[in-house]
Amino acid sequence: MKLSAGVEWSIHCCVVLSQAEQPVPSARLAELHGVSKAYLAKHLHQLARAGLILPSEGRDGGYALARVAGEITVLQVVQAIDGERPAFRCTEIRQQGVLAQPPEKCLEACGIAKVMADAERAWRDSLAGTTIADLAASLDTSRLDEVL
Amino acid sequence: MKLSAGVEWSIHCCVVLSQAEQPVPSARLAELHGVSKAYLAKHLHQLARAGLILPSEGRDGGYALARVAGEITVLQVVQAIDGERPAFRCTEIRQQGVLAQPPEKCLEACGIAKVMADAERAWRDSLAGTTIADLAASLDTSRLDEVL
Repeated sequence: MKLSAGVEWSIHCCVVLSQAEQPVPSARLAELHGVSKAYLAKHLHQLARAGLILPSEGRDGGYALARVAGEITVLQVVQAIDGERPAFRCTEIRQQGVLAQPPEKCLEACGIAKVMADAERAWRDSLAGTTIADLAASLDTSRLDEVL
Repeated sequence: MKLSAGVEWSIHCCVVLSQAEQPVPSARLAELHGVSKAYLAKHLHQLARAGLILPSEGRDGGYALARVAGEITVLQVVQAIDGERPAFRCTEIRQQGVLAQPPEKCLEACGIAKVMADAERAWRDSLAGTTIADLAASLDTSRLDEVL
């Protein structure tokens, strides 16, 4: 199980944007973190599509957070980049092979799928409990003033 | 983020083995769930390597649980198949680019990595709270007596 590498870049970018007083060009965001502009552009589009950041008018393609950092959770950023599909995907094994159960006995989710879904809910709840503002407060953002 | 499809087969197999009074040949396990023997063999090897199931002596290649089902957690099965590497892999972005922090300021894990690790711990704790015996009790295993 592996999260898209873009998750890490995207969370760092949101923390930077939370400290900026004006939109930050995507080229500058890439430079700040030492990543290619083309690579980051894809993830910035994903964040914009999810309504977490807003492109600014004009040629430089700057971005700003779409709402205050205390209202953007880590879970929202993760799902914007990595999608919302569950990591465990039940293929209804209980309806296959010699042991196949009839559909009328499979109206509820399989017990195995339920246990896996509970665990993913715990993971999501944990990520939903931290906002970009929380992260910005816990990280050393002192140098951002100089570079933004 | 996606778990290996083998996780689902492997949990189902462990539940079957928990109900068997003698080792079950891998071909029979495959047949019970309508999956190819070659496909399942790989995952049975992984479960055996993790010490969760034991191959029996003889030509038929049967398997039994290596310990009682109440002492095998869903987490152990998931990690046997999908590995133990974290889903979020920190690449130390804070040490890259214009914003790079010196190594001496990065002795502790980055705050972002900590939040992601906490969430994965919640996921693991949840999966560690259910055993194969719990699952067997919650699933309809009534037909297993006829087919094992």
